[in-house]
Amino acid sequence: MKKINVVLVGGSGYTGFEIIRILLRHPHAQLVASCGESQFGPLETIHPHFAKCVDLVQEAFDADRIAAHKPDVAILCAPHKVAMQYVPQLRAKGIRCVDLSADYRLKDQALYEKWYCPHTDGAGLAEAVYGLPEFYADAIRTAGLVANPGCYPTSATLPLAPLLRTGLIEPTGIIVNAASGVSGAGKSPSQKNHYPERNENYEAYGVGNHRHTPEIEANLTALLAGTAMAGMKVDLIFQPHLVPMDRGILSTIYATPAKPANVEELTQCLQAAYADKPFVRVRTGDTLPATKYVANTNFCDIAARVVKGNVVLFGALDNMLKGASSQAIQNMNLMFGFDETAGLF
Amino acid sequence: MKKINVVLVGGSGYTGFEIIRILLRHPHAQLVASCGESQFGPLETIHPHFAKCVDLVQEAFDADRIAAHKPDVAILCAPHKVAMQYVPQLRAKGIRCVDLSADYRLKDQALYEKWYCPHTDGAGLAEAVYGLPEFYADAIRTAGLVANPGCYPTSATLPLAPLLRTGLIEPTGIIVNAASGVSGAGKSPSQKNHYPERNENYEAYGVGNHRHTPEIEANLTALLAGTAMAGMKVDLIFQPHLVPMDRGILSTIYATPAKPANVEELTQCLQAAYADKPFVRVRTGDTLPATKYVANTNFCDIAARVVKGNVVLFGALDNMLKGASSQAIQNMNLMFGFDETAGLF
Amino acid sequence: MKKINVVLVGGSGYTGFEIIRILLRHPHAQLVASCGESQFGPLETIHPHFAKCVDLVQEAFDADRIAAHKPDVAILCAPHKVAMQYVPQLRAKGIRCVDLSADYRLKDQALYEKWYCPHTDGAGLAEAVYGLPEFYADAIRTAGLVANPGCYPTSATLPLAPLLRTGLIEPTGIIVNAASGVSGAGKSPSQKNHYPERNENYEAYGVGNHRHTPEIEANLTALLAGTAMAGMKVDLIFQPHLVPMDRGILSTIYATPAKPANVEELTQCLQAAYADKPFVRVRTGDTLPATKYVANTNFCDIAARVVKGNVVLFGALDNMLKGASSQAIQNMNLMFGFDETAGLF
Amino acid sequence: MKKINVVLVGGSGYTGFEIIRILLRHPHAQLVASCGESQFGPLETIHPHFAKCVDLVQEAFDADRIAAHKPDVAILCAPHKVAMQYVPQLRAKGIRCVDLSADYRLKDQALYEKWYCPHTDGAGLAEAVYGLPEFYADAIRTAGLVANPGCYPTSATLPLAPLLRTGLIEPTGIIVNAASGVSGAGKSPSQKNHYPERNENYEAYGVGNHRHTPEIEANLTALLAGTAMAGMKVDLIFQPHLVPMDRGILSTIYATPAKPANVEELTQCLQAAYADKPFVRVRTGDTLPATKYVANTNFCDIAARVVKGNVVLFGALDNMLKGASSQAIQNMNLMFGFDETAGLF
Repeated sequence: MKKINVVLVGGSGYTGFEIIRILLRHPHAQLVASCGESQFGPLETIHPHFAKCVDLVQEAFDADRIAAHKPDVAILCAPHKVAMQYVPQLRAKGIRCVDLSADYRLKDQALYEKWYCPHTDGAGLAEAVYGLPEFYADAIRTAGLVANPGCYPTSATLPLAPLLRTGLIEPTGIIVNAASGVSGAGKSPSQKNHYPERNENYEAYGVGNHRHTPEIEANLTALLAGTAMAGMKVDLIFQPHLVPMDRGILSTIYATPAKPANVEELTQCLQAAYADKPFVRVRTGDTLPATKYVANTNFCDIAARVVKGNVVLFGALDNMLKGASSQAIQNMNLMFGFDETAGLF
Repeated sequence: MKKINVVLVGGSGYTGFEIIRILLRHPHAQLVASCGESQFGPLETIHPHFAKCVDLVQEAFDADRIAAHKPDVAILCAPHKVAMQYVPQLRAKGIRCVDLSADYRLKDQALYEKWYCPHTDGAGLAEAVYGLPEFYADAIRTAGLVANPGCYPTSATLPLAPLLRTGLIEPTGIIVNAASGVSGAGKSPSQKNHYPERNENYEAYGVGNHRHTPEIEANLTALLAGTAMAGMKVDLIFQPHLVPMDRGILSTIYATPAKPANVEELTQCLQAAYADKPFVRVRTGDTLPATKYVANTNFCDIAARVVKGNVVLFGALDNMLKGASSQAIQNMNLMFGFDETAGLF
Repeated sequence: MKKINVVLVGGSGYTGFEIIRILLRHPHAQLVASCGESQFGPLETIHPHFAKCVDLVQEAFDADRIAAHKPDVAILCAPHKVAMQYVPQLRAKGIRCVDLSADYRLKDQALYEKWYCPHTDGAGLAEAVYGLPEFYADAIRTAGLVANPGCYPTSATLPLAPLLRTGLIEPTGIIVNAASGVSGAGKSPSQKNHYPERNENYEAYGVGNHRHTPEIEANLTALLAGTAMAGMKVDLIFQPHLVPMDRGILSTIYATPAKPANVEELTQCLQAAYADKPFVRVRTGDTLPATKYVANTNFCDIAARVVKGNVVLFGALDNMLKGASSQAIQNMNLMFGFDETAGLF
Repeated sequence: MKKINVVLVGGSGYTGFEIIRILLRHPHAQLVASCGESQFGPLETIHPHFAKCVDLVQEAFDADRIAAHKPDVAILCAPHKVAMQYVPQLRAKGIRCVDLSADYRLKDQALYEKWYCPHTDGAGLAEAVYGLPEFYADAIRTAGLVANPGCYPTSATLPLAPLLRTGLIEPTGIIVNAASGVSGAGKSPSQKNHYPERNENYEAYGVGNHRHTPEIEANLTALLAGTAMAGMKVDLIFQPHLVPMDRGILSTIYATPAKPANVEELTQCLQAAYADKPFVRVRTGDTLPATKYVANTNFCDIAARVVKGNVVLFGALDNMLKGASSQAIQNMNLMFGFDETAGLF
C-alpha cells in the first residue's frame, strides 16, 4: 500500500515533535516536508532527538512549495491566528488539513472573537469539523478541514458527554478542575516556567479566563443536538492548574445528577458510549484514571464515581497526544480510511 | 530567659524531622529527648541531616522516663491510635501535649469512631483544644492538650471560615479540590509512592472516603458558633490528589455565594479576619496562592475570586509545616506565652 | 509475512512492560504469552496502561506450557539467578532466548561467581552471545541464547570500544562516572527510592562494588581481540549515581590518550565505527549527549572531547530501552532476519 | 545586643532571596535595605514569599543612599563585572563587603581576565580575602572585603584540601565530576532551563571551559602554602552536569594517592582537619554525602573512599547556601565576632 504524503506546518514546537515521532512509525503515512515560522534548518538540529531518523529540512511556510510535495494532508501545529492565515492557502490548493490550533474549534465566530481575536477565515470556520473522533467520525472521514480539539476540552468532554446526552447529569453547575503538565504551555521559555520556579510547585492559573472554557461549553452543547437534552446549554466553571511534570492532564469534574446518582448506571452509560471506541477506557474499581497510565499513549481514561449524591468524574490523557498530536493522527486515519488505530499503539 | 524543655514522641518520621529542625533555631525552647515506636538510636543516624547539630538518642516511649526529663511540653508525631495510648500517660504526669495525630481532632467520639477506630481516651477528647491558632488562640494558651489540625483541613478551613462565619457563602454544596506533595503520605515506602510510579504522575485518591472530610466539616461547623450562622451544618465534598513534589498543598475550593458575589467584599472579609494573624496572607491581584511561595514556611496563603457568579477560593501551605509541625510550634508558642512567631521565620 | 511468536518471561516489571509496549507496534512479531514469578492475572491489571490493547493473562512460568505456544523466541526479564533456572528449560525445548538478566553476560564463570552467586548453567554460559548488536551482529543472528547487556555497560562500552580497539586511548586508568534515572532500580519499593527520599536528591552508590564493573571490563577486553590491542586488559573505576528522574543514563568517561589527543581524530574514529549502525549517534559541536534526547528511543548518543590533553567521553541512552528492552528487540530482529530497526522507531 | 545593619545589593535573584531568608532569623543582624539593578519595588512583590515578613523596598544601587543606612556590612549578590563596579564605591565609604560574585575570588588578575573580562578594581583584588571560613577564619575576621567562594569550588575544595595539604594525594591528575541543581544557573529564563527541557534530563555542560576550574585550582594551590607541598601546583579537570532538581551539588572526585591509599587514613585526615569546624561533616560507613542531607543547610558533607587503589572523594552541599548565601552569612558572623553558627541552623 502506497503511503500518503503528509506535510507538517509548525514542526519546531512540542506538538510538531510528536507528529514527527508518530509518523516515523506509521504504516500508511510518511512525512514529506516540514515548514515553520521561526526555526529553519534540518529537523535533527531543531530536535536533536531526530538525528539518524529524520532527514527533512524545515523551511519557511510557502503554499506553493508545499503543494509541490503533492501532500495528501497538511497537519498544522502553528499557533492560533497564524493557522487561520495558512489554512485558506492550503485549502485553496485542495489540500486537506488537520489544524491543531484553536482557530477552527469554535463554530460561533463571535464567540471566537470574544475570547481570541478577529477571525479572518469565515469559510474555513464554516467548513471545519470538530475533530473528536469518538463523536464525529463520519464527518471527519470526509472533512476537508478538521479542527483538532484542545487538550483540556478532550479530557473534560469525553467523560461528560455521554452523561449529558443521556440526561443523567445537569448541564449547568458543572465544575471542571483540571491539572496539566508543563509541556502544555509550549516550548518558549518564560519566568513562570523556568525550571526552579515551576519545579516543586503546584498552582492555579487562568481563573475565570482560560480560553478552553468556551470550547468545552460550546462543543458539549453541540453534542446535545439530537438527544432529549437538545436546546439546553452547557454551562461550567473551568479551573486549570500546573503540575511539575512534563506531560499529562487530569480533569476532576463535579456535576449535579439529574436523578439520584448511581455509580453503576453512570459507569454503564460511559461503557456503552465507548464500547467500540478504541481509545477511551472506562476505569472501574480501585484503578482511577491517572496521568501515568496514559502517558505516551492516545488513550483517554475516564471514570465516574458518586460522592454524597454528587457525581464526580475523571478524565486523564497525555496532553501532547490524545490532547493534541496523536488525536490529529487519529483524525488523519479516519480521513484516509485507515484503521483508526494505525500508528497509535 | 530559660528555655522550656520539649520532648518529642515519634521523632523518626517526616513531621518529627521538622519539629527537630524548628527547635534547633527556636529562641525559647529546646529538645531534651526523643522517643519512638520503631526506630531507635542516635537521631543523626535516623536522620543523617542532623549530624553535628543534634546529639540526642531516640529511645522507646516510656512515660516515666519522659517525665524524668522534666518536660514542659510533649509534641507527639505518632500515628493515630498510637497517640491515644500515649497522651493519657503523659497527661497523667501533668505534661502538656501537642498531638499531631488525628486522635483528638474530632470532638464527636462517634464521628471519630465512624471514620477511624474505637476511641479509648474520652477524657482526652473532652479536654483537647483544636489547635488552629487563628481561631482558638485563647483556648490554646491554657490548654493541656492541643489537637494539631490536619494538613488538608488547615488549607481549607482558613479560606472558608471567615466567609462562612459572615454568611457570605452557603455552608452546603462546597467542593474542596485539593492536591498535595508526597511527604503527606509519610515515610514508609509503598508501591504507590515508589519513585518511578509517583514521578510524572498526577492522580486522585480517596474518592469520597478521605478521613479529613469529617475534620473539615466538623471544625468549620464549630466555627459557626456565636455567629449568625450558628446551628447550620457545613457539608462538603473533599477530593484530594497527589502531585509529584515533596511538599505543599493547594486547595481549590468552589462555593455558592449567599448573595451576589463580589471579589472585593470577599477579599475584605478575609483581610479583616486575618489582619492581625501573622501567618495568613491574603493574595490579591495577579499573585495567587502557590505551593512554592509557602514552601518551608509557616504561612498559609489564601485568596478569593469570583467566576461566573461563583466563589472560587484558594488555600496554600506547606503540608509538613503550617499543615503539621510548624503549626504545632505555633501552638506551643501560644501555650507558653512566647511571641506567636518565635522560631517560625 | 507471518509474525513470529514471542513469549515474555517476567512481564510484571519495568523491562517487561517495555517489551510489551514495543511488541504492540512491531511489524513482524507478536506477544503470545507472558509468565512471571510473583504477579499473575490479566496484564492489564498488572499494568493498567495496557487496558484495551493487551489481552493476555500472565501465568506462572512453566516450560511445557510455554512450548505449547510454539514460540519462536522467549524474552526473559526475570532477575539474575532466576533466569539461569529458566533458560536451560527453554533451551531444552529448542526455544531461542534473549535474556535481560546478568546471568549470561560474563563468559568467565569464576568472575560471575565472584560478583554474583554460584552459576548452575555452564552450558548456557558457553552458548551465550553478548547481545551488543553494534559488535556482535553476526553471532547474534544465529544465536540460541543472547545475553542482553546491562544498561550502564552499554552506555560505557559504545563510546569506549572504538577508541580502545584503535589504540587511541589507554586500556587502564579509565574512570566511568555514570548517573541513572530511578527505573533502573526496578519496581520494588524501598526506603531509598520512596518518592520523598529520592526526589530532589542526587547521590552516589555502589562505591567500588557495582556489579556492572566486571561486565564493562570483561566485555571491553573481549572487544580488543583481533586488534593491535589484543592481550591488553581493560581496567577501570565505575561509579554510578542516582538522578531524580524516571529514565535515562549518562556516562561521563575520563580516559588517558595513548598519543596526543585530538578531538577530530577521536570523533572520526567513533563516526567510522558506527557509520552503518542505525542506533548509535556521534554528537559533535554544541550538542552533547543528554538523557532527554534519547528518552523513549533505542539510540545511544556518544561524543568525544579533549580537556587539557585528556579524553572525555559521553554515552547517553534510555536505561529501559537501549539499556534493556529495545536492545533485546534489536537482538531479536537480528536473530530472525528482520530489519534491525523494525519496531524500534 | 544591638543588631548590626546589613545592606543587600542584588536582592532579586536566588542568592539574594536566601540572604533575606537567613537574616529574618538571625539573632544579631538585620536587613536595613536592599538594592538592585533591574527589579525595584517592595521585596514582597519581587519575592511573594516575603509578604508579611519583609517590609523593605528594593531601590537602585546608590552608594550614598546605602551609606545613609549606616550599614555595618554590605552583602553583594550582583553578577560578576557589576560587583567590581559597586564594591569600590562601598569600600570608599568604609563599608565592609561580602561579595558573592566571582570578581574577587582569583588573586591573579591575569588569570581572572583570561577567564572572565578586564578587571577594573585591582585594589579590591589586593584587599580581598577568600571567604572559605574553614581555612581563612582569621583573615576573614578582620577583612574589609570577603570574596565568597563559588558553589562548585566549595564542594570540591573542602574534601580535597586536607588530603593535598598532608600530601596524601597527588596535586595533578585530579578529576572533579560535579552535578548541580538548576538554581545554580540563576533566575533568568532560558530555553535550556525551560521546565520541559530540563525536567527528566541529566546532561553535561561547560566541557573544559567552566569558570570554576581556575578558582578551584588557584585556591587549592594557595592552600598548599606553608605545607610540605608548598610550591606544587594543583591541576585538575572539572566537569559539571545539570540535575533536574532545585538545589544541591555533589562533586565526585577521583585522585591519585601519593602512597598506597588507606580509607581509614584518608578519613582520619579529613576528620582531623574539620574536627572543630561546625559545618563540615565527614561521612563514614554506609552514609555517603547526598544532596538531600544538606538541602536547606549550611553543611558540606564529605567522604573519602578507596576504589582499586584510587582515591574517590565526595563533597555535597546546598549550592544556594554553603555554596553561596549561608556561607556569606558564616563569613559575616566571623567578621563581626558572632558565633560562627549564628542564624545558620
